[in-house]
Parts: sequence; C-alpha cells; structure tokens
Amino acid sequence: MSGRPGVIVPPSVTAARELVEPVLRAAVSRLDPVTARVAAYHLGWADADGRPAPSGGGKALRPALAVLSARAAAAADCLHAAAATELVHAFSLLHDDIMDGDATRRHRRAAWAVFGEPAAILAGDALLALAGELLLEDDCPGHARAARLLAVTVRDLIAGQALDLEFERRDDVTLDECLRMAAGKTGSLIACACSIGAVAVDGPVPLAGALSAFGAEVGLAFQLADDLLGIWGAPAATGKPVLSDLRSRKKSLPIVAALTSGTRAGDRLAALLAAPGPLPEATLRQAAALVEEAGGRAWAEAEAKHRLDAAGRHLAAAGLPPAVHADLLDIARFLTSRGH
Amino acid sequence: MSGRPGVIVPPSVTAARELVEPVLRAAVSRLDPVTARVAAYHLGWADADGRPAPSGGGKALRPALAVLSARAAAAADCLHAAAATELVHAFSLLHDDIMDGDATRRHRRAAWAVFGEPAAILAGDALLALAGELLLEDDCPGHARAARLLAVTVRDLIAGQALDLEFERRDDVTLDECLRMAAGKTGSLIACACSIGAVAVDGPVPLAGALSAFGAEVGLAFQLADDLLGIWGAPAATGKPVLSDLRSRKKSLPIVAALTSGTRAGDRLAALLAAPGPLPEATLRQAAALVEEAGGRAWAEAEAKHRLDAAGRHLAAAGLPPAVHADLLDIARFLTSRGH
Repeated sequence: MSGRPGVIVPPSVTAARELVEPVLRAAVSRLDPVTARVAAYHLGWADADGRPAPSGGGKALRPALAVLSARAAAAADCLHAAAATELVHAFSLLHDDIMDGDATRRHRRAAWAVFGEPAAILAGDALLALAGELLLEDDCPGHARAARLLAVTVRDLIAGQALDLEFERRDDVTLDECLRMAAGKTGSLIACACSIGAVAVDGPVPLAGALSAFGAEVGLAFQLADDLLGIWGAPAATGKPVLSDLRSRKKSLPIVAALTSGTRAGDRLAALLAAPGPLPEATLRQAAALVEEAGGRAWAEAEAKHRLDAAGRHLAAAGLPPAVHADLLDIARFLTSRGH
Repeated sequence: MSGRPGVIVPPSVTAARELVEPVLRAAVSRLDPVTARVAAYHLGWADADGRPAPSGGGKALRPALAVLSARAAAAADCLHAAAATELVHAFSLLHDDIMDGDATRRHRRAAWAVFGEPAAILAGDALLALAGELLLEDDCPGHARAARLLAVTVRDLIAGQALDLEFERRDDVTLDECLRMAAGKTGSLIACACSIGAVAVDGPVPLAGALSAFGAEVGLAFQLADDLLGIWGAPAATGKPVLSDLRSRKKSLPIVAALTSGTRAGDRLAALLAAPGPLPEATLRQAAALVEEAGGRAWAEAEAKHRLDAAGRHLAAAGLPPAVHADLLDIARFLTSRGH
C-alpha cells in the first residue's frame, strides 16, 4: 500500500521486512493448519481461500524499529525479537477487530468476518503465545528479559484497550484519560519495539530506557496523526473513510480535545454526537467543522509536533551510531506523516 | 465444591492452593481495574459486582502438580511456575466459553455472559500474557526454559481447541483424531504442569521428560473420565447436567468410539444425532444407551484405566522421592475418579 503522495516507506523498513518475514512465516507454520490459515490471511500472506496473496502483508514498521534497536546497542540482529513485536501487533489487531466489531481491515474483510469469531479469537491467542515462544528460543543473551518486556507491554496494551472499550459507554472522558488510553494502546508496543532489540542483545539499561522513551513519544505522535486521519482522511492510505471516527462516535484525541475545550463549538459537538441513531453525512461534516472550531484539530497537530520533538530529544540523548539515529528518525517521521 | 461421595481433594492440592493463591492474586492485581474485575470473577474470587465470593476459586490442581514437579527435582518451590499454569488454564476456559457459546461455568454464569464478549476476550488475553510475565520474573534458574515450555503448551492447547471446533462441522471424526484433540486440549497443559516445576528449578532433562509423559497420560485419563461424566453425570460435581454432551452433540471420546465402532448400535446413534433441531430427553436417553451398547462406555473406561496404568509406569521410571511420588499418584487418581 502506498502512503500519501511524496511519503515513501523508509528503506530501513523494507530491509527489515525482508529480514523478518521468513522468521515470521516459519513461526506461523508451526501452528495447526486451521489456525495457521487464519493467521496467514490476517497477516496478508493469503486470501480467504488460502491462496498466496499478491501484495502480501503489512509494512513491518515495528520489526524495523526492533531491528534498529538491536543495532543501536550492538552490531547484532535479533530477528526473533523483531518478529515477536509483529506477532503481538497482529494479535492485538485480530482481537481488537472482534471487540470493536470492525468488519474491515486494510481494505479487506477482517479475519473474524471471514473465518468466524471462534477461529479469530484462537488465531489471536496463537500469535500471542508464538511471540513468547519465538523470543525465548532465540540465542540473544537478553532474550528472557526481552520476553518479559513484551509480556508487560501486552498488559499495557490491554489496559489501553480496556479504557477504549470503557470510553464507548461514557460521555465524560477527559483528555488526560484519552492520552493514557493512547499511551497504552499505541505507545506501549512502539516503545517496546524501539527498546526490545537493545534489551535482547543485552545492551546498556540507560540506552534501552532512552529508546523506550523515544518510542513512547513516537507512538503518541502516531496516534494523534492517525486520529486526524480518522476525521479528515485519507482513505487510500488508511482504508478508513473520511469522517469515520465521527461516524462511529469514537472518543479519539482531537474529538475529546474539542469536547473538553469549554468552547461553544465543543458543546454543540457534544449535542450533535449525543443524537440517537446513525448520524447523517451533513451532520458528520458539521461535527468535523466543530472539532476544528473548538480547537481540537490545532491542538492535535501541535501536540503531535511536540511529541515528535520530545522523541527527537530522547534519541539525541541516547548517543546512537549516526546511521541508526537517522533511520529511527526517518521511521518516526514516516509514522506520523501518513497515518499507518 | 465437593467431589463424588468418598472422593476428597488430596491434601497436597489444598496445600498448594494456599501457597499459590497469594501469588495469583498479586499477579491479577497488576491488571487494569476493569480487566482485573473480570479475571477475579472468572477465578471465583468475586461475584459479578466485585464483592468477594465466599467459596472462592477452583481447586488449583495444575498448580499442585507444578509444585510437586519442582519438588521432584529439588528441595525448592517455584510458585511462579505453578501460578502460571493456573493462569493459562483460566485463560483457556475464558476463551473456550466464548468460542463454544457456553453461558455457564462451575454453577455460575460464564464471564462473557456477565461482562460481555469484548471484556472476556481481553481478560483471557491478559491472563495469558500475565502467565509469561510472572514466570519470567521468577528467580528460578530455568525460568526462561519454563516460559518457553508454557508457550509451546499454549500452541498445543490451541491446536486441540481448533480441532474441537472443526469437529462440530464434521460427521467423519475418527477416534484417532479425537484422541489427538484431547491430547492437545487437555493433555498438554497437565503434562506441562507435571514437568514445568522440574524445568524451572533446572532439574535433569530425563526427569522432566518422565514427568511430562506421566502428565500426558493422566490428562487423557482425565478427559476420558470427564467425557463419561458428560453423558452419565454427575451434575453436582461437574456443573454439567446428565446427557449434556449428547444434548450438545459433542464429539467426545466415548461418543466417537461408539460412532466408529462399526456396530448397528453405532449406526443407530449416528442416525439419532443427525436429526435436526434440539433432541428430546427420551432421544438423549436412547442415545446414551446406544453409546453403551456400541461399546463406547466400556472402551472409555478401559482406555482410562490403561492411561492411568501407563502414567504410573512413567512415574515409577522417574525415581522420585516417595512422598512426591505418592502425592502425584493421589492427584492422578483424584482427577480421573471425579471428573473435574
């Protein structure tokens, strides 16, 4: 999938994908045939009938961060750690689509919509367990610490998703809670990807800490950019139609910023979103204008920029080899400039 | 919950439960409040409103096996390994109830029926991740190998559950496939519980192997006993009404043994179960009689005995301290004499 015009996938991502995909495929091939088929579909390697898919798979941004993270600490790769982050990402998307009732993922039907909920629950479970298995059979010296980091990350991820589900039933979500949700749901796995390689190769603890802090900020900047796309497009890049987060009444960051702005536009937005039943297109366009009028868009854009700047400072403090530094910054900019 | 008259919970199980429960509670308390509440309900510690439940929790058979497994290899406990097996067991029950649509578990409403599917999916995910986290922060010398064993076990568990789901759509399940399903779904975690303690304390590999083989046989004997209860009772012990596996047309071991027996009774049973719609009570009683007539009951009883004998031989070959040997045999007999 291509990004916005002028935004191309960084070469380090393409290179990492080529390194990690064989490890991922070998891991998935250990699963029983039924579960392996659901996983292969979800990962974009196969169509619903099990035939190889021509385009094939996501961009492997998290594995690229993990590969660079190992190189930041040592002249070594730790591909199992990189593959494990992608497996956890895939697990969380599989289960999130079921929980959120999202029937579409990356321009295709979601796995649960094709294979049914039971098979999709099971495939998610399998990918989560496989991530631990893979990491623990690696011969990287810090593999047990890396596996523990990944497990703690999954706990944070789940806490974020639990908050997100809770938000659906509430109309008093604060911006602080919303940031906490995004930190768990998006920030934690990107922070983990940015540090797990350094942990796996037994790199210095302060280095892993700086990389994790970098990733947490990048993750939030990414979520803010994604939330902006969830209102104002672009469907070609994200697979989400314009206005989709307003259509689903999602408590995304710009929307909550607008709702809690104390402005008249914010109050009118709340009244619009409180109407029962599906919201007509004209109302959605009006709601988007109100998010902007209430300052939600400007806040999210500024906040994304602050987060990216903070990420850059953490990275500078890490004192990395220049090539690794440049590649990590490249991915951070890519993530926050296109949305997915 | 009491067992059959005359079958009491072995003292080693009660003792292990007292050792492991605080570790489990501390682990669950790390989860976000919403997920922790679902987990506490599912584990029997709280009611649907979050109030402490008077009876509280399962019997902790798997943790007891894990505690004994560590003692078989060393004069050491490895309570995190024991707690991790219980967390994986709880995870699998949580998700299985959703997949199977079972609204009742241990005489109470299943967690998904109380809190909704999304919260129950998430709580299962959390318990699975927590098992790895707990194991990896243990200071037992073999903790990384133990965590890997647990991850591989989850893969086997999932393969068994995937087969079970597939069986629902098939009418040509062989007895061999059915045994393979039971080995995955039930045998693998009991085999893991019986060996994970020895692995975690870095015990000799052949000892862990013998303990695992013991557990695999015990697991199958347990499943056979459970399947007999699924047809002929007893509801007080299992929470399942008499004839429940016939009512749900489950492809359990005695039923598949009868269906594939090549007898006239087996063919009549197949015809009965193929009828559309819910089966009336009289038909269910007739079906149970046909399972017996086709030799399904006798086969399952004999097979359970063979498995228990084989388990005993594996245990004898392990050369354990006599007290540990006796306690393990006690649990094996308990598991196969009451059903749960």
